[in-house]
Amino acid sequence: MARTNANKGLLIVVSGPSGAGKGTVMRYVFEKCPNMRYSVSVTTRAPREGEKDGVEYFFRSADEFTEMLHNDEFLEHQKVYDNYYGTPRRFVEDLLDKGFDVLLEIDVKGALVVKRRRPDTVMIFLTPPDRGTLEKRLRGRSTETEEQLAVRLDAAIGEMKRASEYDYVVVNKDAGVAAEEIASIIRAEKCSARRNKYFLENLIYGGNSGYDD
Amino acid sequence: MARTNANKGLLIVVSGPSGAGKGTVMRYVFEKCPNMRYSVSVTTRAPREGEKDGVEYFFRSADEFTEMLHNDEFLEHQKVYDNYYGTPRRFVEDLLDKGFDVLLEIDVKGALVVKRRRPDTVMIFLTPPDRGTLEKRLRGRSTETEEQLAVRLDAAIGEMKRASEYDYVVVNKDAGVAAEEIASIIRAEKCSARRNKYFLENLIYGGNSGYDD
Repeated sequence: MARTNANKGLLIVVSGPSGAGKGTVMRYVFEKCPNMRYSVSVTTRAPREGEKDGVEYFFRSADEFTEMLHNDEFLEHQKVYDNYYGTPRRFVEDLLDKGFDVLLEIDVKGALVVKRRRPDTVMIFLTPPDRGTLEKRLRGRSTETEEQLAVRLDAAIGEMKRASEYDYVVVNKDAGVAAEEIASIIRAEKCSARRNKYFLENLIYGGNSGYDD
Repeated sequence: MARTNANKGLLIVVSGPSGAGKGTVMRYVFEKCPNMRYSVSVTTRAPREGEKDGVEYFFRSADEFTEMLHNDEFLEHQKVYDNYYGTPRRFVEDLLDKGFDVLLEIDVKGALVVKRRRPDTVMIFLTPPDRGTLEKRLRGRSTETEEQLAVRLDAAIGEMKRASEYDYVVVNKDAGVAAEEIASIIRAEKCSARRNKYFLENLIYGGNSGYDD
């Protein structure tokens, strides 16, 4: 098929500190982008009540995880407390090949690993509009002590320091606007010249453009 | 002001061969982007009936044009038949400084000069979906001979060969969709990490983010 390149979905990473408001924004983004799918991560942690294998996570034993790691089956993986989490490369590639855009909601460290391995990944950093809002959102969501809050605020600032390594920075002042911006980024990226090389070649040198229905 | 960088408008170039359908698409884009302004070119050609200086063009004598050229007052300029046309740098910069996005509708040659001089220019190439459509549109607009048509088709193909040097390729199969894509590109570019450096610095290291109304 002529437009393989253009028909393949986009790999999209969205990161942002807790307090950025990812949950609400991404819910709106999914409403606007019916062609998008979440990646399902692999984890060694035990399933919680009601969680199904392949839905919330792929649940695997530590040995199975290690085996996958040896086989280079992860786009990125991390240890969080005593459990491992990984983004399964094959699962993601299959969705992309089918034309779905795939969303990875991962932290900065994992995100930058993915970008290194797949430079065509669209990297979006979601940030609160200012420190005051960040603090207010962190305070609002839990009954933490001031000390715990300070730790989370520090972690958030630490993540924001890496935002300039992303392709895009979306400011979540209003969740609807932020979602619209993310949808626009996805739309724009599909028009990027480098993603349309095959289309251009076909247009200029003949062949089916893939636009004739 | 803290967000100088983000408040400044975008310089946007849209090129495309005749037959790409720029006129209709750009009319829709302007409806969607009230913050956008056309750049007004300088020309040495005589004003036609009803044309006003500073509206359709800035009308200047050949001597005045040469003087401007010596003073490096053009972002790009070209000779078309016996007349000169140029994009006035100062006029464009003033609009950008005021926060307007400025649209240059220029041909590939001029566009690539602008990109070299202002690498932050957003370069959009509008293309017909396929050769058949291109030919049909070229035929539809005039009563040219087959020979003249072949010349125009050749010129169009020649321009399209440079499309990969642009940032974005927008396919005009449907003018409304193409316009929405261009509007999305503009929106996305405003979120690019490199255009939000000052915002990020202020967010991380303090100062007014500019988002507190």
